[in-house]
Amino acid sequence: MTIRQTLFCGAAFGIAGLALSAVPASAEEGMWTFDAFPTAKVRKDLGWAPDKAWLDTVRASAVRLTGGCSASVVSPQGLVLTNHHCVIACVQDLSTDKADYVQAGFTARSREDERKCPGQQAEIVTAITDVTPQVKAAIGTATGEALVRAEIAAIARIESGNCTDGATQRCQVIKLYGGGQYKLYSYRKYSDVRLVFAPEFKAAFFGGDPDNFNFPRYALDVGFLRLYENGRPIAAESHLRWNPAAPKEGDATFVVGNPGSTQRLFTQDQFALRRDVIFPLTVPLMSEYRGRLIAAMAGDKERTRTGADTLFGIENGYKVYVGQWQALRDPGFSGTLAANEARLRAAVAKEAGLRGRIGDPWANVAKADAAYRDFYADFYLLEANAGYGSTLYGYAEALVRAATEREKPDAERLPGYSSSRLALLEKQLTDEKPVYPWLEELTLSFWLSKTREILTVDNPDVKRMLGKESPEALAERLVSGSRLADPKVRKRLFDGGMAAIRASDDPLIRFFLINDERGRALSRRYDREVGGQITAAQAKLATARFAVYGDSIYPDATFSLRISYGRVKGWTYRGTAVPPFTYIGGLYDRATGAEPFEAAPKWLAAQGRIAKDTVYDYVTTNDIIGGNSGSPVIARDGSVIGAAFDGNIHSIGGSYGYDAALNRTVVVSSAAITEALKTVYDAGSLLKELSGG
Amino acid sequence: MTIRQTLFCGAAFGIAGLALSAVPASAEEGMWTFDAFPTAKVRKDLGWAPDKAWLDTVRASAVRLTGGCSASVVSPQGLVLTNHHCVIACVQDLSTDKADYVQAGFTARSREDERKCPGQQAEIVTAITDVTPQVKAAIGTATGEALVRAEIAAIARIESGNCTDGATQRCQVIKLYGGGQYKLYSYRKYSDVRLVFAPEFKAAFFGGDPDNFNFPRYALDVGFLRLYENGRPIAAESHLRWNPAAPKEGDATFVVGNPGSTQRLFTQDQFALRRDVIFPLTVPLMSEYRGRLIAAMAGDKERTRTGADTLFGIENGYKVYVGQWQALRDPGFSGTLAANEARLRAAVAKEAGLRGRIGDPWANVAKADAAYRDFYADFYLLEANAGYGSTLYGYAEALVRAATEREKPDAERLPGYSSSRLALLEKQLTDEKPVYPWLEELTLSFWLSKTREILTVDNPDVKRMLGKESPEALAERLVSGSRLADPKVRKRLFDGGMAAIRASDDPLIRFFLINDERGRALSRRYDREVGGQITAAQAKLATARFAVYGDSIYPDATFSLRISYGRVKGWTYRGTAVPPFTYIGGLYDRATGAEPFEAAPKWLAAQGRIAKDTVYDYVTTNDIIGGNSGSPVIARDGSVIGAAFDGNIHSIGGSYGYDAALNRTVVVSSAAITEALKTVYDAGSLLKELSGG
Repeated sequence: MTIRQTLFCGAAFGIAGLALSAVPASAEEGMWTFDAFPTAKVRKDLGWAPDKAWLDTVRASAVRLTGGCSASVVSPQGLVLTNHHCVIACVQDLSTDKADYVQAGFTARSREDERKCPGQQAEIVTAITDVTPQVKAAIGTATGEALVRAEIAAIARIESGNCTDGATQRCQVIKLYGGGQYKLYSYRKYSDVRLVFAPEFKAAFFGGDPDNFNFPRYALDVGFLRLYENGRPIAAESHLRWNPAAPKEGDATFVVGNPGSTQRLFTQDQFALRRDVIFPLTVPLMSEYRGRLIAAMAGDKERTRTGADTLFGIENGYKVYVGQWQALRDPGFSGTLAANEARLRAAVAKEAGLRGRIGDPWANVAKADAAYRDFYADFYLLEANAGYGSTLYGYAEALVRAATEREKPDAERLPGYSSSRLALLEKQLTDEKPVYPWLEELTLSFWLSKTREILTVDNPDVKRMLGKESPEALAERLVSGSRLADPKVRKRLFDGGMAAIRASDDPLIRFFLINDERGRALSRRYDREVGGQITAAQAKLATARFAVYGDSIYPDATFSLRISYGRVKGWTYRGTAVPPFTYIGGLYDRATGAEPFEAAPKWLAAQGRIAKDTVYDYVTTNDIIGGNSGSPVIARDGSVIGAAFDGNIHSIGGSYGYDAALNRTVVVSSAAITEALKTVYDAGSLLKELSGG
Repeated sequence: MTIRQTLFCGAAFGIAGLALSAVPASAEEGMWTFDAFPTAKVRKDLGWAPDKAWLDTVRASAVRLTGGCSASVVSPQGLVLTNHHCVIACVQDLSTDKADYVQAGFTARSREDERKCPGQQAEIVTAITDVTPQVKAAIGTATGEALVRAEIAAIARIESGNCTDGATQRCQVIKLYGGGQYKLYSYRKYSDVRLVFAPEFKAAFFGGDPDNFNFPRYALDVGFLRLYENGRPIAAESHLRWNPAAPKEGDATFVVGNPGSTQRLFTQDQFALRRDVIFPLTVPLMSEYRGRLIAAMAGDKERTRTGADTLFGIENGYKVYVGQWQALRDPGFSGTLAANEARLRAAVAKEAGLRGRIGDPWANVAKADAAYRDFYADFYLLEANAGYGSTLYGYAEALVRAATEREKPDAERLPGYSSSRLALLEKQLTDEKPVYPWLEELTLSFWLSKTREILTVDNPDVKRMLGKESPEALAERLVSGSRLADPKVRKRLFDGGMAAIRASDDPLIRFFLINDERGRALSRRYDREVGGQITAAQAKLATARFAVYGDSIYPDATFSLRISYGRVKGWTYRGTAVPPFTYIGGLYDRATGAEPFEAAPKWLAAQGRIAKDTVYDYVTTNDIIGGNSGSPVIARDGSVIGAAFDGNIHSIGGSYGYDAALNRTVVVSSAAITEALKTVYDAGSLLKELSGG
């Protein structure tokens, strides 16, 4: 429930004397790319390693969901396994006040019942090509804003030049090691993704926020989608075989998916910036927003329904941020990070040639971060997180900027608006999707009031945004007056370009236009003083690491395809051993009848029939992070034995380092899914499809 | 609006290169006690110093309000000057849905109109006696829990033995320098305090939370009370003379009041505990609670009225915490604090005799703080801040504990329940005061859900508290079932002692009883591992400071009577000079018509008549902190020229150190009060009384 790639950024609670690995990777550590699979290391650690055919099949069955999740094809008819929390936004979008699928669950009884998920796109990697030389040649010796511009232009050129069929292909250049490597990932894309099955929220998220990131766990965090093309289910080129049996303790497990973001290669100054500047600003903001949501939803059934996904996202993200921050404040954990950096610096200092080639990238990062401190709050509030996630504000921003940027050559555009990236943006902008005015107003008034509070009343940006209005009155006027909730209106504005934007009297478009230039200026300042500097410095740090550690290292997570390996294994913390498995029967023991520990009605009804000794959830040592949500967990024989849906509490520090003793992936077993489909949900046709019938 | 002593704990925003003074005190620094007034230093800094008669009159006119504020007697008939934000709780308690004095303001047109403030008590110092030898003799060589017990017993003995008339006297032993000195403060107390005048919230708190702690400022943060005895206004033994003229730039100013709490004598480990443990837990909690309040009040007029004081308190406290925390994370500010400690340690190291006497108190503090880290969250959630300020929970706690503790000798009681302290507690418990069920339920469900979140679901304390209930359901049951809102019920339970408590079926009493022992155990653990250790270490640090710095030092604030001296003076920050005065005319320029920048209707009506060149608010260099709210600002001639109501944003770091260049007190001028009473409020009789007529 946890590892969807959106809000998260990890803290080991009470980490004592852990053996953070940094570089080179320790046993079972690493989120490895498919083009640099560490065969020898895996063989050494597991006593066996997959061959090329195994890896090729797995890669061709692995799906990235653009909402920030991972998934896998599990039938020839394009059936896709993922998590419930990866489809909950879709389930909510498809619900109405009359038919609430979040509460009731959703089971398509036929193909015709399968319903399209707004904004969702599925992507399967078809090739990985090294384009480092091209991008680095384009960058040359540039730094700062010039570096960022050159990098964007080179990436846009490579992406456009390699994907000629926009309808079925997507090309994306992935920046690895913070700028040490650039790889072109080519994807087969599927824009019509439909909902097949989602259990009730109470079953999928039993234990709610309190149990999130904890184990033992009793959650059926599973959802099934199907890939469509031309109105019909696809004939999948590759799929994973469903395995209805649970693994045994010690069995090897592979997790294949798209970990979103880690910061294991950060320097000490980057950690300090997070600890002392970023988290102290962002955590209290999330906290107040969460409080406003909870109180606005309390006792209001419709708001409780329509705000559920937003609240889940913020609570999940909050737990991650708090945990990551705690890790950085933990003397033991942060001491290990400092020692790792000292080790690399000492190794570099010993090699005069290397030292001459890279200079002092640590000092350059420190300088960039010192500059960032001075405008972090402005940048965060007015540009990077402007609108605080408001859907309507996001539409206004994307429409205005798409119109402006399309008039420029790729090299001059903002990132995200290059020609190769517009197709997905257009889909996300024009798909029909419900908008909830109360939530929009709450979000915008929160953002405006916090911006005023933090930047202060007399700040010229604040004055320009608010004029003589209060945050509340302005938010009300923008939301009640805007017609951007209508996909036809958005389509017209998108197609109409700058002429349509200029002619629009939509208050949100007008509001965004007033503030656009300031946001762009902050963005340029970020590129100039921070982003461009850090890319240059990280490229040099990558050079140093390759020179010192060779290929025993892996890049930080980038929401691109990775594979991690491990075993089914519990852990011991402060003398208490946590076994690796839970069983369906345990759900009934843990249920109190009070939210969020209420068993779903269908599960209560099935209590007498269900096989209570079925493995429900289990933990493995795989190294994953947010974005891996929905990843297939694959056995040595290539069969899928579950879907990763969470990490334990100790895994949150995984953003900064992997601890084999404590860091665990939490999986919902294919055994439990099979038993539930059979006994609880009576989903015979789905079961049949999974079993290859 | 800011410096009431309740929630605050102070950060200079963007402090660069400040000259924090620590010890010895720099020019104009210090919150001095009346029995150690630094005459020579004041004469040196101001070119003049008050004599004993001046000081005696001022002391005898200075009032402490038990709600956490300061005040002064300003007429022979017991009229008391304080801040609006010090009387807003009373104004709200006296309001109903029919008569909302928070919005409309309150002006008593005759004595009969003056209304008693629930729970309010006023106290005037009559004597200060050194009782250090007695307390230190009682403590002897005890440490830990034994030290705390001996200290409590000695203090209770001194307090009881010196105040024989409980109806009119209060004795309180004040611990100074964290245990270096103990002084007995004897007070004349007044338990019948009535509301005379309060302006509209919009006038008193113009600019609201955004302008709080900022300057220029346009706030009439003033309130008048009157002391009664036997149903009649008192004949005051001493009072300050009202001065309707504003001071000039550079004029000397004295602020006399009760600064609540500073931590300037903390060690590095104590600062680190705040920065890394306390603030990261408490700030996000305040933030979410604030969010819940805001959303619950939005669009609901009655809740907006009844929640106003709670929201103000949390927003004010939040700003203080955030500022203090920022100061501790600021490299320049925290570097100065570290240098100050290093300086004292070096001085001690040079003196073998001193070193032998005090040992290594820094190490002892470090050990205590390391122990505290392990149970801080438990202690905070289950004992120190249990109930998160819920009025009903507070009643249950005080009733149960008063009953239990009264059965023991003073030496064995919890602090706050010794015989000398029960009178005020009884008054606060039995005064009639409105309770708002929605707010109680919101607060308790917040507290319960956060306790579950932070301590986790499977924690035995959490399990005992919640049983099978959800936080929301439990809070609803406790609030809807409790009869503790009725003062007669509370009176019966208080008078009935343990027998009545045991017989009570009030759900909140039952709930508190279930959890009481755990809270007590945490309290004992705190005494043993933290409090008792730190008192012993701070006593040794005080010895070191006196030896090294002599009497050039002053104790940390303790919500007891202090005097600070300074001048009317603006400041310059990042090249921008802020002048010391605002004028009434500026209010009309700043008003936007949108909350919280709406001028009050009466002020708009008076716009044509009012003297716009009257000084409204002004700033001085006086060293104050939360608790000083309402303090008289006194001119060299002994007249009162305003009421301190805030500090500027740079003053928040004042918790840890005073910066003469930036730290400012914000005052509402007696000139503006006079003009407003005359022109806006038509309060002729009040004006006449002030002018001695």
